[in-house]
Amino acid sequence: MSEGELRPRARDVGVILGAMEPGPLNAITDVPDVRVGHVTLIEGSGALQRGVGPIRTGVTAILPHGGNLFREKVPAGIFVLNGFGKCFGQEQIEELGVIESPVMMTGTMNVGIVADGVAEYMMSLNPDIAVTTSTANALVTECSDSYLNDMQGRHVRQQHVREAIERAASGPVQEGTVGAGTGMSLFGFKGGIGTASRRLPDELDGFTVGAIVLGNFGRRDQLTIAGVPVGRALSDWQPPETQNETGSCIVLLATDAPMLDRTLRRLARRAALGLARTGSIAGNGSGDFVVAFSNALRLPHDSEELLVTLQHVTEGGRLIDALFQASVEATEEAVINALFRATTLDGWDGHVRHALPLDLTLGLLRKAGALHEPS
Amino acid sequence: MSEGELRPRARDVGVILGAMEPGPLNAITDVPDVRVGHVTLIEGSGALQRGVGPIRTGVTAILPHGGNLFREKVPAGIFVLNGFGKCFGQEQIEELGVIESPVMMTGTMNVGIVADGVAEYMMSLNPDIAVTTSTANALVTECSDSYLNDMQGRHVRQQHVREAIERAASGPVQEGTVGAGTGMSLFGFKGGIGTASRRLPDELDGFTVGAIVLGNFGRRDQLTIAGVPVGRALSDWQPPETQNETGSCIVLLATDAPMLDRTLRRLARRAALGLARTGSIAGNGSGDFVVAFSNALRLPHDSEELLVTLQHVTEGGRLIDALFQASVEATEEAVINALFRATTLDGWDGHVRHALPLDLTLGLLRKAGALHEPS
Amino acid sequence: MSEGELRPRARDVGVILGAMEPGPLNAITDVPDVRVGHVTLIEGSGALQRGVGPIRTGVTAILPHGGNLFREKVPAGIFVLNGFGKCFGQEQIEELGVIESPVMMTGTMNVGIVADGVAEYMMSLNPDIAVTTSTANALVTECSDSYLNDMQGRHVRQQHVREAIERAASGPVQEGTVGAGTGMSLFGFKGGIGTASRRLPDELDGFTVGAIVLGNFGRRDQLTIAGVPVGRALSDWQPPETQNETGSCIVLLATDAPMLDRTLRRLARRAALGLARTGSIAGNGSGDFVVAFSNALRLPHDSEELLVTLQHVTEGGRLIDALFQASVEATEEAVINALFRATTLDGWDGHVRHALPLDLTLGLLRKAGALHEPS
Amino acid sequence: MSEGELRPRARDVGVILGAMEPGPLNAITDVPDVRVGHVTLIEGSGALQRGVGPIRTGVTAILPHGGNLFREKVPAGIFVLNGFGKCFGQEQIEELGVIESPVMMTGTMNVGIVADGVAEYMMSLNPDIAVTTSTANALVTECSDSYLNDMQGRHVRQQHVREAIERAASGPVQEGTVGAGTGMSLFGFKGGIGTASRRLPDELDGFTVGAIVLGNFGRRDQLTIAGVPVGRALSDWQPPETQNETGSCIVLLATDAPMLDRTLRRLARRAALGLARTGSIAGNGSGDFVVAFSNALRLPHDSEELLVTLQHVTEGGRLIDALFQASVEATEEAVINALFRATTLDGWDGHVRHALPLDLTLGLLRKAGALHEPS
Repeated sequence: MSEGELRPRARDVGVILGAMEPGPLNAITDVPDVRVGHVTLIEGSGALQRGVGPIRTGVTAILPHGGNLFREKVPAGIFVLNGFGKCFGQEQIEELGVIESPVMMTGTMNVGIVADGVAEYMMSLNPDIAVTTSTANALVTECSDSYLNDMQGRHVRQQHVREAIERAASGPVQEGTVGAGTGMSLFGFKGGIGTASRRLPDELDGFTVGAIVLGNFGRRDQLTIAGVPVGRALSDWQPPETQNETGSCIVLLATDAPMLDRTLRRLARRAALGLARTGSIAGNGSGDFVVAFSNALRLPHDSEELLVTLQHVTEGGRLIDALFQASVEATEEAVINALFRATTLDGWDGHVRHALPLDLTLGLLRKAGALHEPS
Repeated sequence: MSEGELRPRARDVGVILGAMEPGPLNAITDVPDVRVGHVTLIEGSGALQRGVGPIRTGVTAILPHGGNLFREKVPAGIFVLNGFGKCFGQEQIEELGVIESPVMMTGTMNVGIVADGVAEYMMSLNPDIAVTTSTANALVTECSDSYLNDMQGRHVRQQHVREAIERAASGPVQEGTVGAGTGMSLFGFKGGIGTASRRLPDELDGFTVGAIVLGNFGRRDQLTIAGVPVGRALSDWQPPETQNETGSCIVLLATDAPMLDRTLRRLARRAALGLARTGSIAGNGSGDFVVAFSNALRLPHDSEELLVTLQHVTEGGRLIDALFQASVEATEEAVINALFRATTLDGWDGHVRHALPLDLTLGLLRKAGALHEPS
Repeated sequence: MSEGELRPRARDVGVILGAMEPGPLNAITDVPDVRVGHVTLIEGSGALQRGVGPIRTGVTAILPHGGNLFREKVPAGIFVLNGFGKCFGQEQIEELGVIESPVMMTGTMNVGIVADGVAEYMMSLNPDIAVTTSTANALVTECSDSYLNDMQGRHVRQQHVREAIERAASGPVQEGTVGAGTGMSLFGFKGGIGTASRRLPDELDGFTVGAIVLGNFGRRDQLTIAGVPVGRALSDWQPPETQNETGSCIVLLATDAPMLDRTLRRLARRAALGLARTGSIAGNGSGDFVVAFSNALRLPHDSEELLVTLQHVTEGGRLIDALFQASVEATEEAVINALFRATTLDGWDGHVRHALPLDLTLGLLRKAGALHEPS
Repeated sequence: MSEGELRPRARDVGVILGAMEPGPLNAITDVPDVRVGHVTLIEGSGALQRGVGPIRTGVTAILPHGGNLFREKVPAGIFVLNGFGKCFGQEQIEELGVIESPVMMTGTMNVGIVADGVAEYMMSLNPDIAVTTSTANALVTECSDSYLNDMQGRHVRQQHVREAIERAASGPVQEGTVGAGTGMSLFGFKGGIGTASRRLPDELDGFTVGAIVLGNFGRRDQLTIAGVPVGRALSDWQPPETQNETGSCIVLLATDAPMLDRTLRRLARRAALGLARTGSIAGNGSGDFVVAFSNALRLPHDSEELLVTLQHVTEGGRLIDALFQASVEATEEAVINALFRATTLDGWDGHVRHALPLDLTLGLLRKAGALHEPS
């Protein structure tokens, strides 16, 4: 991880994506009360021993707020750009329009266990679940870390889920080769977790849209940074063995603008346009899901009342377009941050994913006039 | 029409469908401020002259409220049970969750002209449409009246659209062979327009769900009334020439319970279960669409405000289930009312659709113990 | 179970639902090569000890065919009548239109573990999964058995999944209080597993549609059998403590008619109409999912070929309507069979679900003229 | 138009978008048998007289093949990126998976009349429509041309529809200020019709994906060409009066790769990523629809046969990803071609949309190293 600490984020070295301003942390945690926690599992090396290792995986928990999520649900919407993947809990979110548990990211084969771990955690907080009230709907998303990780081993266990949730905190977010991002690949480089945010101007109430991505998609030649076809120029630099895209991408958007499910689904759809700016073609094997929630609204689990009163964003005027633009830009920058921050990692049978070479990359951007250098 | 006036509605003669109480009119107009208007076109007889006649068609307008619908939109949701049909305007309702014009029902080939007529009407009320503001989204639904009507002639014109809208009124609703229902067939009998409503008990705030259907589906042998397979028993009575189902069904639900698009979509889905109770199998050729709106909420076209505050039904507890049940029951009864009220009509080339024989039908229901006779 | 063996199926005692003929077994296994296996877990009694018992749960596996499902996938479509539930694996089926694993039914809290168990099973058959090829998409459906079962304990384990799959067999299917149906309730009576089928006439190529349901929904007063409101008449017979619907229903349809995803989704939608005939209003808390597959088509996992040639049902003419009607009728009868076959079971803290009293029920049907008695 | 003839297409002057090769025409008509026809209506000038003029509108017809489309339907899929618009006929295409008529593009207010015109045209070819067989489903898409055109006048009439269809031809496609594109705006410049194509390599059977767009979206500052933020650099050049996005975009994809509805829907979804590369954020007011069809498959209207045999693209391997990439690239280039080819046009009350200044644009691209200049 120490190497990662030394790698800059994109904006720190003059890569300015989009036109809007980020929030103070340029992270999903700029949305007040959103919390992120990682558990990273790196053990063993050498030949693949199925069920044993090497282990290059993890789990990431994002908490929409710090309260009891089952008792105070948040509105949510999902957009499936490419459904070749698992998204445990999607159906209920589409039907009821709310998230009622931490949102989890992990490696593909861990989904069942992580869903079970979330259930266990939710019951420990709410002993009435599955006894005198309904069950809690977990939301578990995934990408495949099979290139580096012994994925058959399903090395994420229930206690790691609890740990990731309990570690979840406000403030700066660890990026790159961490948590669910540990074993991920992005455009033939090392990928993983990235985050970014956009803050609307004060006349639009200063709302924030934050994105966190689990980036694990793309062929080398597709990579585009700030419009520059960096991937093509780097095609001969430590070329990946395989050019098949078998990855995926998860985008989670958070906002403090008060929005309900339909409007959040609209926001989620725009994240796909942010992925496109990085070069994504949503390849056949890439399960690309976007989840968006607003923590400005809280919906009670058990209401004695027949009616509830809520405030919403109106969908005319400049506010909604600004939110959409923020979704595009924060998603794009989160993917690029995942690349900038991820550190080289080896896996089984000599597999290696190299970190994006920053010097070469910045040189390409400079040449195209796409680098905002400090004067 | 005079014959129709003499035919009773189902409940008047002891056919009690479902368990909930209807509103005072047992009609969609029990939802305050909902208005219905019909234009019925019956002209000529004899051999089909394409483009000339005989004419057996019409148009029905349902106004969610009596104000300017473009300026005060109402939340809406749609469920497509079988999309083999046209539903002009559906996409925008799914995206934005609102209806902003009268809801129209008509014969299939008239949809384009009716949509144009609604546009004209909306511009006459709102001269800024298509000049300094956006266009108005019409919602035009249809069933095929080709068995009786010269459908190629598209005999509904723009002025009929305006007329139906301007005639729209609160109070009792004409049913059967009227408006869009003029040329329709239902289970091999004459069909058309039917309506019904359910009123929730006071402890559930006394909300109303009203349904109006354009009923034009089903084979004779499928007809089920109050659970009794009436159609099979009447299979030899004036049997229809063809047993192919090429019909369709449109259900429009209105409520004064404050609900937004997602919840209204859930309500709409339950109407399909009401259709099933009458014997529907949603045959391949039957384009079956359900639209639901709530006129308890009004969304402004142009809002200076960034946020709007709304009251909603909570989706736990007894209220939502009561609304769902009301949707099922009102839809079922509206279909049966269409059958009870529709009067025999001839069409081109000797085609005839006979009205449901009420004496035989009531006899069958009595025998099965399914008739609630006045004591 | 022995009590169950003595209870008849609906058709055996003259309850004839719908108009089409069933296949020889009147079961989903009338579709050649479909296999069903159950694991039933009943242990302990008395007070609820969370995580310990009493145990009243299980798991049911349905195999679309007897081959390697990952290597020979079958087309599939899903309809969500009410998404208040979990349906692990749905997204990928919607995207790719195929099922590639056994279809599992279980209690709600077991879904994560069962999904993990399916993954383990699939890897044991296909060691390249998650190493050199993609992962297998499990399809795990659920209903809540919390009224009788210690659901917090998640008593179904990975080995039970393997056991259910390995037990899966052609031939007659156990119904009622068995497998995933062990702890389920239906209209305030004991519910669980039911099955039925319809065989099309020879001129329609003699195709079969089979249904298996996990029935766990409905309030007592809603129950309708052959159109007769049996539930209302039995409202005072061993009345259930609670009238809240918190159940769910899973319907799985199988056919040997060659159909792809879109057409199967259409078939699935008609199953909702079959549920409606039994009295369902798809209550808020009832997560109602329908899955349909055709095992007449097999899609290879790895194809060297760019193109594949397939035969499909044409969607005009009588065949498609006959398939739709079969879906409605088989679903309706499968639910009623679940009721007829399920046997009384007690759960924790004195909870009991009584089996439908058959004598009273048949008496009610006879009185309404709805019983086809052997002459 | 003559000015337009002088303006080059993007690729002609060294703007190479994406990595794949275009077909010989670099147009949707590279897909064999696809035909395109335009009717352009430009009349009057000066002050807006509602219902009279000035007229700046038109209609474009795309024929999937040259035969009788009602008798030989083609598979189709639709993706709605932003449903704030009308897409007449969408529901039936989603349900049945086929297009059975010419695909029309026009100005928003003309949709009803154009749908009626298509109906008339289809009946003239198929006199059994609406008499002894079902009706034909028109597919009519739109964007708003209200900035230049008297949109209230609905100046496209039924005969223009017939004319556009009858003019439809293979070969080069007119672009820019033509047909439905006559009154459209794109990134604050003059927009309209654009087209492009991609041809797969021979080892992928040399299939072609062609795109035609009706481009009418975007704010000036969003415009991106070949990754270069051209729009920001040109923000002071003839700035548009308003920066509100009230536009829309229609993308129609054609392919000769044999694909059915679900796979075509996947293809359509990728076109959104092509729009994103040009700077689209799918603004609130931009109704963005993508339609994709394959004319390699023909589905008969009336089949005596129960089954039909079809060849399909397999969705593993390199073919599907190549088709997806072709969708992204052809869409991107079609939008840029619309900009390059469109010519300045004035409208009512002095409104003017200026053509993209090509010299300035090419200068910006050259500076960024994004121009492939002939050596």
